[in-house]
Amino acid sequence: MRTGIATVCLSGTLKEKMQACAIAGFDGIEIFEQDLVTSPLSPEDVRKMAADLGLGLDLYQPFRDFDSVSEDILQENLRRADAKFRLMSRLGMDTILVCTNVGTATIDDDDLRAEQLSRLAQLAGEHGVKVAYEALAWGKYVNDYEHAHRLVDTVDHPNLGTCLDSFHILSRDWDTAPIEAIKPEKIFFVQVADAPKLSMDVLSWSRHYRVFPGEGQFELAKFMGHVARAGYSGPVSLEVFNDVFRQSDVERTAVDAMRSLIWLEEQSAKWLDAASLVPAGAGGDSTANAAGRRRYPMELATLPKVAEPAGFNFAEVKTDEPAQLETLLGQLGFEFDGRHRTKDVQLWSMGQARVIINEQAPSHSEPAIAALGFDVDSPVIASARAQQLKAPVVPRKVQADEEVFQGIAAPDSTEIFLCQGSPDGTAAWTREFGEGLEHPSAGAQAVIDHVNLAQPWQHFDEAVLFYTSALALEPQPFAEVPSPSGLVRSQVMQTSDRAVRLVLNLAPVIQQEAGQQGSGARKSYQEHIAFAVDDLVATARAAKARGLDFLRIPANYYEDLDARFALDPAFLATLKELNLLYDRDANGEFLHFYTATVGSVFFEMVERRGGYDGYGAPNAPVRHAVQYDSLHAHHVQR
Amino acid sequence: MRTGIATVCLSGTLKEKMQACAIAGFDGIEIFEQDLVTSPLSPEDVRKMAADLGLGLDLYQPFRDFDSVSEDILQENLRRADAKFRLMSRLGMDTILVCTNVGTATIDDDDLRAEQLSRLAQLAGEHGVKVAYEALAWGKYVNDYEHAHRLVDTVDHPNLGTCLDSFHILSRDWDTAPIEAIKPEKIFFVQVADAPKLSMDVLSWSRHYRVFPGEGQFELAKFMGHVARAGYSGPVSLEVFNDVFRQSDVERTAVDAMRSLIWLEEQSAKWLDAASLVPAGAGGDSTANAAGRRRYPMELATLPKVAEPAGFNFAEVKTDEPAQLETLLGQLGFEFDGRHRTKDVQLWSMGQARVIINEQAPSHSEPAIAALGFDVDSPVIASARAQQLKAPVVPRKVQADEEVFQGIAAPDSTEIFLCQGSPDGTAAWTREFGEGLEHPSAGAQAVIDHVNLAQPWQHFDEAVLFYTSALALEPQPFAEVPSPSGLVRSQVMQTSDRAVRLVLNLAPVIQQEAGQQGSGARKSYQEHIAFAVDDLVATARAAKARGLDFLRIPANYYEDLDARFALDPAFLATLKELNLLYDRDANGEFLHFYTATVGSVFFEMVERRGGYDGYGAPNAPVRHAVQYDSLHAHHVQR
Repeated sequence: MRTGIATVCLSGTLKEKMQACAIAGFDGIEIFEQDLVTSPLSPEDVRKMAADLGLGLDLYQPFRDFDSVSEDILQENLRRADAKFRLMSRLGMDTILVCTNVGTATIDDDDLRAEQLSRLAQLAGEHGVKVAYEALAWGKYVNDYEHAHRLVDTVDHPNLGTCLDSFHILSRDWDTAPIEAIKPEKIFFVQVADAPKLSMDVLSWSRHYRVFPGEGQFELAKFMGHVARAGYSGPVSLEVFNDVFRQSDVERTAVDAMRSLIWLEEQSAKWLDAASLVPAGAGGDSTANAAGRRRYPMELATLPKVAEPAGFNFAEVKTDEPAQLETLLGQLGFEFDGRHRTKDVQLWSMGQARVIINEQAPSHSEPAIAALGFDVDSPVIASARAQQLKAPVVPRKVQADEEVFQGIAAPDSTEIFLCQGSPDGTAAWTREFGEGLEHPSAGAQAVIDHVNLAQPWQHFDEAVLFYTSALALEPQPFAEVPSPSGLVRSQVMQTSDRAVRLVLNLAPVIQQEAGQQGSGARKSYQEHIAFAVDDLVATARAAKARGLDFLRIPANYYEDLDARFALDPAFLATLKELNLLYDRDANGEFLHFYTATVGSVFFEMVERRGGYDGYGAPNAPVRHAVQYDSLHAHHVQR
Repeated sequence: MRTGIATVCLSGTLKEKMQACAIAGFDGIEIFEQDLVTSPLSPEDVRKMAADLGLGLDLYQPFRDFDSVSEDILQENLRRADAKFRLMSRLGMDTILVCTNVGTATIDDDDLRAEQLSRLAQLAGEHGVKVAYEALAWGKYVNDYEHAHRLVDTVDHPNLGTCLDSFHILSRDWDTAPIEAIKPEKIFFVQVADAPKLSMDVLSWSRHYRVFPGEGQFELAKFMGHVARAGYSGPVSLEVFNDVFRQSDVERTAVDAMRSLIWLEEQSAKWLDAASLVPAGAGGDSTANAAGRRRYPMELATLPKVAEPAGFNFAEVKTDEPAQLETLLGQLGFEFDGRHRTKDVQLWSMGQARVIINEQAPSHSEPAIAALGFDVDSPVIASARAQQLKAPVVPRKVQADEEVFQGIAAPDSTEIFLCQGSPDGTAAWTREFGEGLEHPSAGAQAVIDHVNLAQPWQHFDEAVLFYTSALALEPQPFAEVPSPSGLVRSQVMQTSDRAVRLVLNLAPVIQQEAGQQGSGARKSYQEHIAFAVDDLVATARAAKARGLDFLRIPANYYEDLDARFALDPAFLATLKELNLLYDRDANGEFLHFYTATVGSVFFEMVERRGGYDGYGAPNAPVRHAVQYDSLHAHHVQR
């Protein structure tokens, strides 16, 4: 699949954008006109630079408001087109995007439109230019790709074809199956964009909220499957207008974009495989290969395959001041399994829940979640997949005889280790710890239930795609939780069996009033690891007996809980006594408590009763408010 | 008018919110339930604290999903209500908001609803509680205030009344005139919120985009006029869900909120005055007073009246390194009018365009726009108005015989001075400058055309209300301009005669990748002062002859300009030679150029031909790109 991206997706100058696209490995780019107009580079400079960078200049865009106009405006438009065709020749470009008229269209007549497009195609032909005609979702008279293509068919000129843009098609819920009926030589260009399902006017939705494939909710693999079955094999190019990407680091965004196309390519191949198992519709020129898959002119590369992870292998907290953390884990019921034989690292466990305290941190580093281990079938295959998806590799020093961890860096720079799981939930690498230490008898049982990571606002969408594509987690619909410092966007990523639950939280941007400094940036939103136990009340009682500093829940909460659920008074008294939180839904019940925060980390203990599948979302505002209060009190003390 | 605000409008804890509301001068507050539930304060603590702060506890809210349910759910809901009524008694509160059912309603039957509301009213009566019933705009069966009120009328119980919320009414475009037909004793509460006109689902619009009155586009004065004519005299309380306010400094937001109510009060009185001049509809219990104004139970305080400013009096740039600025002004054609007789301040002028260079700045302060002077009829009255609108006063040291400037601080901390205008455009205070200096002969003529100020994202809406209410500027629809570091939101505020044009720009949040520091925060978006002249080409030629460092416009821009406008080749060559930008619309033409940036300031020279009323918006991306390039090059050099 030939990969492309429109320069409008990225921040920076045209030069910076082109360099970032080359580094990310795109085959070609679309030049968004404004990026050229505002650039000090001459068309010839751009042409040379693209050649030097190995980037194709695949599409010049957009040319607006051409058709459905009176003859005098048409003359003006043809003059304008002529100027752009001459410019394209200097750029060495041969394809231009012409979108359906929004602003100046006054005549709704397909015959007239076809005649006007025919004149444009003829002019284009004289310049060796191909016109890719695209139906905007909000085009005044033409806003449906089938309508646009009927015009292309009517004109029947070799220099006029169709441009298919997934946003304009899927935002309007147009049926994508008829794409297969379009002759491949008449599809001049394909643009892809994903988007969250929002109910707002389609123009604002398009201009601000598009995201890269895999970061939204459109059925893009199906769209691409139909495109492949039509026989198209040209560029598949991202055109994503997004307020955040426009502000973010250009090189990172370009890599995120490339990852989305690599992932889409795989998903499209999968969709085609699945579709080939059922009787095909009016397909393109395809032939079945040995494996039953049909072959299409568009080559769709595949990736190393991974199944979803079987569970968390470990969580790692980094600090050079581990004392408080050790105390907290001990009070929760974790056992100290000793130090690593060569590294300055401790292991603590409670059944299959393993926490590593990594003391190899710069001085005065308060505890922070640094790494997560996941159980996968094959760490090498999973790592190969992640690397093909452009995940940065994390180097980990190992000694002879030690397990080699395959590590990659998540967008928030948390290190993700791909570990060899075992059916009994143990981990071979734990043998490297506690030499000479008598291993304690098996104590309380627990597993890591979920981990909650704070995401910088620039990298939230990127993180969703990262965990979807590299780790095979499935994004759930997001929620918004009120906190005293703003709404917190919360996005659950999980496996189908819920063995892995990862919560990505986008915390509010910190206010920086005069006199405040930004050192608390990470602190302002804390991260946590939650452990599931069978009997939370007993766990809490034991922890209390060991002196644990619980997050203190206000009395008002328990009154409200009683008003909502009419709880048994003795049970309510127990909840209140132990600072436990409670939630209930149609499927079951949820009990949980939080510890105080150390550095930017705190812990949660949970008990799931019945089929309860949530995270106690109604209780999140209480947690946020109490944590805000403690943090604030702490600051005032200082 | 009794002023109120819901705690959900503000950031922080319940305690912080209550303190901020008291400081801002609110009469009472609505307690949003979650703020109480998450608070360590007991209901009795809250009651005492409110009493100590002199804050009424006017409304407990919300109680959701009560009506239109089956009998078993109703029983549960009555039990829930009973718990809340008992809680309210501990708080010393007597009014609760019950909103129409969204989540659990299954039976659409007004008779049943009336019966269920009647049972609620009876229970409320036993607790001495008044139920204010509100139609949510997205209520399942009841989403229209007239429908909700018909139910209140049917039940006819002293403990059941209506709550009117401007958002729920105006977002659905319900007619507000029928409010006047509601008996005043049946209106238990009035909530106000403004909002920008957005086309999106009403729930998301309500939960994220409400703003304070004067910051949006709803006809709130009319809404309030109908409420007053109905004879209502209870609290008028802000209920504004806004993502930014939730993150902003609580005390500033509370003051912004209070300002909006003071302004709304005045606007409502004005609407009533205007409405009393035409035959009234079915009005409430009103009597005409001597001035023709009708009297209503709700007392609407007025403010000192101001007309819109007649023009800019001066602009002030602060720096302790004035050399580059002096050079730039001289090259533009400004004349040096001397130093102030007692202060370390210079005056430069070009006709009526006056620029003060204030050297009383901390060391190493690069030039930045510090103050703007506006010509008003009466500085004292304008200052009194601004102060009643909670604008902070700016102290300005003066010596005997010097003009006393009335100064207030804008939300972005720019100092706004209210000056005595003169019909001939001169300013008396200029006599304080240039003692002993021979005044140069009158040179080139210019006026300040517009000033462009960057606004921090937390204070953008606040700034719109500030300039609307304190300075009588009129907000125009906002635009969004692409720049290499993100979209820039641009909001024009102007007088009806365009003598004052102020542009508020909300720049993208700066990306803070690892290794970057935030010192460039102000720099990242520059501010400027634009001067209008009669002959821009001549001005530019003269400036070029004096060696001015123009912002250099790329050649590609002129090619595109020609493609768009088919300009006369000689004219196009002149534009290109002098780095002039050009725009044209149906009313006229616009020529302009920019200087290089000094500190965070640059200058623009413009010529308006015919009725051109814009700012060359199509050229803004070019300016942003070239400035970004220079800034970037500058950083790399360092």
